[in-house]
Amino acid sequence: MARRGREKATAKRDVNYRQLRNPFPPMELFSKDEITSMHETALQTLEDLGIRVLLPQARDIFAKGGAGVKDEMVYIGRDMVEAALASAPKSIECRAGAPHRDIKLELGALTFQPGAGAPHATDLKRGRRPGSARDFNELVRLTQHFDVFQMVAPLIEPQDVPTHLRHYFTLETQLTHSDKFPFIFSRGTPQVMESFEMLANFRGLDADAFEATPHAYTIINTNSPRTLDIPMAQGLIDFAKQGQLSIVTPFTLMGAMAPITVAGAITLSHLEALAAITLTQLVRPGAPVCYGTFTSNVDMKSGSPAFGTPAHFQASLAAGQMARLTGLPWRSAAGSASNLNDVQAANENQMGLWGCLMAGASVIIHSAGWLEGGLSVSYEKLVTDAEVLNMIAELCAGAKAGTEEIGLDALQQVEPSGHFFAADQTMGRYRTEFYEPIVHDYANFGTWTDRGAQDANTRATSVWQDILTRGTGPSVDAARLSELQAYVATRTSAGGAPPES
Amino acid sequence: MARRGREKATAKRDVNYRQLRNPFPPMELFSKDEITSMHETALQTLEDLGIRVLLPQARDIFAKGGAGVKDEMVYIGRDMVEAALASAPKSIECRAGAPHRDIKLELGALTFQPGAGAPHATDLKRGRRPGSARDFNELVRLTQHFDVFQMVAPLIEPQDVPTHLRHYFTLETQLTHSDKFPFIFSRGTPQVMESFEMLANFRGLDADAFEATPHAYTIINTNSPRTLDIPMAQGLIDFAKQGQLSIVTPFTLMGAMAPITVAGAITLSHLEALAAITLTQLVRPGAPVCYGTFTSNVDMKSGSPAFGTPAHFQASLAAGQMARLTGLPWRSAAGSASNLNDVQAANENQMGLWGCLMAGASVIIHSAGWLEGGLSVSYEKLVTDAEVLNMIAELCAGAKAGTEEIGLDALQQVEPSGHFFAADQTMGRYRTEFYEPIVHDYANFGTWTDRGAQDANTRATSVWQDILTRGTGPSVDAARLSELQAYVATRTSAGGAPPES
Repeated sequence: MARRGREKATAKRDVNYRQLRNPFPPMELFSKDEITSMHETALQTLEDLGIRVLLPQARDIFAKGGAGVKDEMVYIGRDMVEAALASAPKSIECRAGAPHRDIKLELGALTFQPGAGAPHATDLKRGRRPGSARDFNELVRLTQHFDVFQMVAPLIEPQDVPTHLRHYFTLETQLTHSDKFPFIFSRGTPQVMESFEMLANFRGLDADAFEATPHAYTIINTNSPRTLDIPMAQGLIDFAKQGQLSIVTPFTLMGAMAPITVAGAITLSHLEALAAITLTQLVRPGAPVCYGTFTSNVDMKSGSPAFGTPAHFQASLAAGQMARLTGLPWRSAAGSASNLNDVQAANENQMGLWGCLMAGASVIIHSAGWLEGGLSVSYEKLVTDAEVLNMIAELCAGAKAGTEEIGLDALQQVEPSGHFFAADQTMGRYRTEFYEPIVHDYANFGTWTDRGAQDANTRATSVWQDILTRGTGPSVDAARLSELQAYVATRTSAGGAPPES
Repeated sequence: MARRGREKATAKRDVNYRQLRNPFPPMELFSKDEITSMHETALQTLEDLGIRVLLPQARDIFAKGGAGVKDEMVYIGRDMVEAALASAPKSIECRAGAPHRDIKLELGALTFQPGAGAPHATDLKRGRRPGSARDFNELVRLTQHFDVFQMVAPLIEPQDVPTHLRHYFTLETQLTHSDKFPFIFSRGTPQVMESFEMLANFRGLDADAFEATPHAYTIINTNSPRTLDIPMAQGLIDFAKQGQLSIVTPFTLMGAMAPITVAGAITLSHLEALAAITLTQLVRPGAPVCYGTFTSNVDMKSGSPAFGTPAHFQASLAAGQMARLTGLPWRSAAGSASNLNDVQAANENQMGLWGCLMAGASVIIHSAGWLEGGLSVSYEKLVTDAEVLNMIAELCAGAKAGTEEIGLDALQQVEPSGHFFAADQTMGRYRTEFYEPIVHDYANFGTWTDRGAQDANTRATSVWQDILTRGTGPSVDAARLSELQAYVATRTSAGGAPPES
């Protein structure tokens, strides 16, 4: 019996972090009546106060769909919103570079992204600096390494790559160093169209296959309050036209660009999201679109943004209730305001994370590495937060309490005050029962001291250095890579494509 | 209208952290059938395999109650367990030193305790050292300072106080520096009886008033697997006899002193808790007793205890399901295995905390300051974890979404792309809307660098130093204090009371 136990113990742990379902019960902040009032206020505001839309083409689409348009203001009727929510898909199959990386976005799904869009990168070896092409490359490779990041994100801005060529670089890097669902910035139609072309060719897809299901996503931030700017409106239109995924995210800070209350801020965020979603459905009914919010508060003493606060947590909960009202998959965000990866950074990020988890977010953005309220991404924090995300992924797998797990025989085998180290149940499971950490250290104080008394950040430095040194990315087809590089070379010679604003 | 807003803004924030209700939806790890199987296995094990009870008096009480006794083994029938669960109170009013500090323990209540029982204390100013009387005093004062700790705990062992006098010192320190619900160690009948006498006299209570409701609590750890030692059994009997609170806590590590599975470990923990609870009810039906568990896993590579792991989280969830089956208030625990207050320590403690919160624990022990799996308590960690607990306490207050909070007028006042800083809604609420942190810093990178680039631990050092310097404790009646000190002096001259083992 002990021998059988030992044989079983050679089994490897097999936990799938790539497709997760949220196991946490959703938490409701507001009553159903309160949520209805917020939704009604949002609809009424869209009808009566309207939203400012800077792109004439978008205003035309809204007008053609039945909206009132006066100068830059667009007044959207509730019937238009309701039609949009009815036609937007509730489940979205996202195609990555390999089938095991595909993800399905819907209510109940759970995906994580590292921190995105930071101007700076920072690590303990090289300090804090403006984000560079090297940083972008390294951070995409680190993202690829951890299965728990199901989507690639533009972690930092590669500021040493000219803006008219940056979209070539960021997409080429994602496609060649990762086979996960990639990101494309909405910085105007020319860049987006070229990016679609690069992506479809690299994946070997004709126009129909490309448009049939999303192969990339973009993040659409409204300019709160109540403004949709030119590149964002273009992004919504271009992505919808070609069946690619827009994740609509009003980014609001309570007390600054949004009302000071959670209820007010989420009402504003909701109406902006509804306007953007409506635009996508007017362009192409059934176009894939995610609902979203990223709402936290400012510190009213200093005016600084704060993250991982009670208000941030509550805003995620409220947004989750609004999202369930729409039925759409949706994104929320964690994050930290700390200036280095310290205890504050860890506590803020995890607090924000639990808000998103209990809110039932389908996509949790900025869930790792994000410092300074998004002004830097830390290599060490990416690793230490990945540890937390891994543990959450473990929780997604649940646990069993069948006869074997309860293990009356183990209780019978071990005398009072004895130990279970040698019990058959233990021998059969000890290699696979528990999560094995990547950076957490369980050594006692003496052993830890003898080994150099390294804190988690120091160990995290070794972890990311090891990953970058070992450097295993996806296998890339040589012919497609050449084509991709040739395309970029040709377009670069032709002058690239500057971003729109 | 703006003026009225400004007037309202002078209101102080008024959040009650002293009596909390758990707002988080309970999470179920196992199905109802699985929980029933675990409970049945526990009952069967108590009947058939029994539990080893080292104290003859306890075996006599069990025997008189109908249990089978053979040598040191006690075999407890399920009818005895069921009777005990029926007579144990489901709601327990705990009397502190001031009415606003009283707490009610029941399912749905939420109380926090700092880390307890560590042999070492550590802080950035004085380093890691064996716990001393000074440390005990300081840590009780820090505990008193933060409302979010509703109970006092014996944070560290004052190793410079002789063991036969230690109970005088620890209780006197709690009573004179805190008006919160105090702790008494179960280290044998003589110490416990003297402690009860000190406490009743200091609170000015006759025997009836003292016994009517708990004025102190103890923690009862079984010696897993299936052993109840002498001082623990004496504690259960002595506390039950005098109507004081026992919090029963099998402390088990999966794969070491408990089965390697969550289901097995919690089944063992459950049966041990049931045995201890049964003893209290045989002594005095209706005696106040909390169900409890503290179950985590060992790292199977090193054999070291791990905390804040997925298995720890799941064990809390499973224990919560068992506790709800008993209907009793119950305790769980957070904690960290890290050797210093770093990112690992923060992440582990918070992960453990969320397990307890979603498990619906009524008392969360070791929720702040606990490092090295309980071998040290950190002053800085006490502060940084208190920040997290404060934020959770804020979440307990919920939020409203009435007409004022949704604030259509605020949406109307602010133009597209404008800001809400000057909106009436903002002006009326900006002083009170958001939680104000004690150690988290929201300054931007430049300002933070100019101020000395302090990490959270460095700031936490200033926080605890300030609290100890300002030194506000409860007011203490001079006559009662003299009596207490005279009692201690007399007993000390008479030779004190050594602990039992």
